Amino acid sequence: MTEEVCLWTAVEQAAAIRDRRISARELVRAHLDRIDRINPAVNAIVTVVADKAMDAAKAADEKTTRGEPTGPLHGLPVAHKDLHLTAGIRTTFGSPSMAGHIPDVDDLVVTRLRHAGAITIGKTNTPEFGAGSHTFNPVFGITRNPYDLARTAGGSSGGAAAALACGLHPVADGSDMGGSLRNPAAFCNVVGLRPSLGRVPSWPSTLPWSSLSVQGPMARTVTDVALTLSVLAGPDDRDPVSLSEAGAVFARPPDPDVRGLRLAWSPDLGGLVDVEDEVLDVLEPRIRVFERLGCTLTRDCPDFTGADEVFRVLRAWRFHHAHGRLAAECPELVKETLRDNAAYGGTLSGSDLARAEERRTGLFHRMREFFTRYDALLLPVTQVLPFPVEWEYPCEVAGVGQPDYLSWMRSCYFVSTVGNPALSVPSGFSVGGLPVGLQIVGPHRGDLTTLRVGRAFEVETEFWRHAPPLT
Amino acid sequence: MTEEVCLWTAVEQAAAIRDRRISARELVRAHLDRIDRINPAVNAIVTVVADKAMDAAKAADEKTTRGEPTGPLHGLPVAHKDLHLTAGIRTTFGSPSMAGHIPDVDDLVVTRLRHAGAITIGKTNTPEFGAGSHTFNPVFGITRNPYDLARTAGGSSGGAAAALACGLHPVADGSDMGGSLRNPAAFCNVVGLRPSLGRVPSWPSTLPWSSLSVQGPMARTVTDVALTLSVLAGPDDRDPVSLSEAGAVFARPPDPDVRGLRLAWSPDLGGLVDVEDEVLDVLEPRIRVFERLGCTLTRDCPDFTGADEVFRVLRAWRFHHAHGRLAAECPELVKETLRDNAAYGGTLSGSDLARAEERRTGLFHRMREFFTRYDALLLPVTQVLPFPVEWEYPCEVAGVGQPDYLSWMRSCYFVSTVGNPALSVPSGFSVGGLPVGLQIVGPHRGDLTTLRVGRAFEVETEFWRHAPPLT
Repeated sequence: MTEEVCLWTAVEQAAAIRDRRISARELVRAHLDRIDRINPAVNAIVTVVADKAMDAAKAADEKTTRGEPTGPLHGLPVAHKDLHLTAGIRTTFGSPSMAGHIPDVDDLVVTRLRHAGAITIGKTNTPEFGAGSHTFNPVFGITRNPYDLARTAGGSSGGAAAALACGLHPVADGSDMGGSLRNPAAFCNVVGLRPSLGRVPSWPSTLPWSSLSVQGPMARTVTDVALTLSVLAGPDDRDPVSLSEAGAVFARPPDPDVRGLRLAWSPDLGGLVDVEDEVLDVLEPRIRVFERLGCTLTRDCPDFTGADEVFRVLRAWRFHHAHGRLAAECPELVKETLRDNAAYGGTLSGSDLARAEERRTGLFHRMREFFTRYDALLLPVTQVLPFPVEWEYPCEVAGVGQPDYLSWMRSCYFVSTVGNPALSVPSGFSVGGLPVGLQIVGPHRGDLTTLRVGRAFEVETEFWRHAPPLT
Repeated sequence: MTEEVCLWTAVEQAAAIRDRRISARELVRAHLDRIDRINPAVNAIVTVVADKAMDAAKAADEKTTRGEPTGPLHGLPVAHKDLHLTAGIRTTFGSPSMAGHIPDVDDLVVTRLRHAGAITIGKTNTPEFGAGSHTFNPVFGITRNPYDLARTAGGSSGGAAAALACGLHPVADGSDMGGSLRNPAAFCNVVGLRPSLGRVPSWPSTLPWSSLSVQGPMARTVTDVALTLSVLAGPDDRDPVSLSEAGAVFARPPDPDVRGLRLAWSPDLGGLVDVEDEVLDVLEPRIRVFERLGCTLTRDCPDFTGADEVFRVLRAWRFHHAHGRLAAECPELVKETLRDNAAYGGTLSGSDLARAEERRTGLFHRMREFFTRYDALLLPVTQVLPFPVEWEYPCEVAGVGQPDYLSWMRSCYFVSTVGNPALSVPSGFSVGGLPVGLQIVGPHRGDLTTLRVGRAFEVETEFWRHAPPLT
């Protein structure tokens, strides 16, 4: 079996297994070989469990032989974000404090992928505790962009995005507090969906009622993302805020007929964020595709005033709770930016949190009102192109200085505050050949609409087919 | 039309209207007459809108005459808790600061009852801003217990409970942060359901993502409560945490066949609360009913350790946000207990809140684990019998001193912390003739199971038929 199969979509790979044109062993072997060959250049997959994977593939093939019912991802290799617990497999959170950590339980997303037939081949890289949208950490180093190895793959699901782009596995899990499923997808020319709050139940979770972070799927196409969502979504009684609908609603390829949909476009989130011309030069002409598809396209934006405070306060509060102790007792084991966030979180009063929640509520209602007039909102995913790996973050965006490592991520994190679904889809390349993503924000719990708009765009543009040079 | 109809169940009243055995005008008139006659003794309904109600009844009858489709509560009179906004109708929150307040919008629960055909006849009394389980305030005074006018009707939905018991309207809305749908139901021999978090969407709501409080139905029977829930439940996009299932699932009378269900009973919440013998003397023999009904009955309880801190912290945080300013600027307009709660809320740090949320998460998982072994948990609703109206709260329960006005409500508020549904059903009377309620706590989102267990008990015991003497 040649490695060619590794660039097939997940849907194609699953069909080949189902039709017995390829065995799970062959498919997993092909991916492991490809990891050996390509991964050292990008450093996307940081832990590989080849023997476990081949054993699981053998078991999967035996299941096929016996004619037993199999899941929708039967035999497909997957690597899990290194923030997600994997029983018996090293899970470091990208932190030197957890470098030797081997959990004894699986994260619920891992359980669900496995239950759907996916085969764990390893773990994907992430920044320390997922903080920031550039994937580097003292345990495993930097993850590089497959389209330009001198540049970042983004983050925090940077390992997953780079691995998908390189065909190291067909689907992935990730998580997204301030853009971590969208930013790396945009930087690596793959698809990432930040699902609605509660769509993908999370467990274990420390503060499950007050979550700003969600887990969700990544893949190379919108249809593959929808397929993966179909096995990740659906209620679980371990998550008190999980949504009740079964995941099955996402199992069919999203209908790309979007005629009559009302789309809004804002290049700068209503004037609140700076975006590099190189990003907008790609996006501005590209979104005209939607007019050809029969949509109306209006320049408009919900009022995101207050989103910055909401995000920074709620995030710092969580970070202080999760990492404050480690940051205070072992500062050498925590990067400075994260220490600063945790320290800020420690200064917050109950009133600060209440004010943030109140502003968040105002934002939620403005967003809701906006979506009575529009079916989806189009935004840039990122304010910049993938930047050199040596930078911790871009200190300047479109000529405007950025005070810290969060500021350049506002195009994603403003959207995170109210829990709407948001999809990143490949939308072309800069003059220098770097990927650019289009962000499609859907209405409250409108994951299906979001996927439909994304698929319509993808079917028309097919940028996902532009595999990176090193493959 | 005699007033006799006023003690019919909601289901019976709705059927009589549907079958044209009675008109909406006759039904509303009968209730208004009864309010004139009985309400002065109990002070349950504090605002009456007789003309508006008769106009709406006329419109309802015209709709019937035209053969138009009508809702499940078509023509039924209802009074709304005075914490719930009613457009054009005085809404005071029981606070002198809001004594003249006339809102221009309806609370969502009011809209939904109206949409289902119910006719607003007025507003029911509540403590100041719903704080505490004894209904008195400087605007309207004390609501009295229909079974003993010298005693409290409970609270905070005390007006609704007393009005239902007296046949002043057949169904009611209420709200429950620490027991406000359950405590007054128990004290007044009616039924109150604290639904699962998100089951009944709330709007307007200040901190919708962090709610401890829910709105829900009250009535004289479990079937009437289920019917009311069927029109209150179901998603609304103004509430970011509303559950997705349609309310229709509650429209049919809950199936009272509970054979094989595994019930747990704890008279003292696992030893954490004190309960008066007079309450347990009624409940202990009564719960044997479930053995006759084919259930297993085991003495057992989830570990509620930490629930006290969780409830007090989260409640005070909300109270400071909602009332802190008024309490500080116009202390004379706020009762002392509420001022104290708000002041405590003002001292809370972000870390205090995170710790409460973490303890709440631990509780949630212990509760979840418990409900893998049991289908429902039986508890006393209240730790005491209805007490003299002159007391602000019982300073002693079963010989143990209570430090403040919250302490005697722990049998309800412990349950509030994790969002499980909990029903209060009439379960008999003390030697002195005072009502006692049985609390049925269901699994996470198990409103239907909770209602079924309640209905089975009700069908077997029929205590709801014991109308208070003054009717």
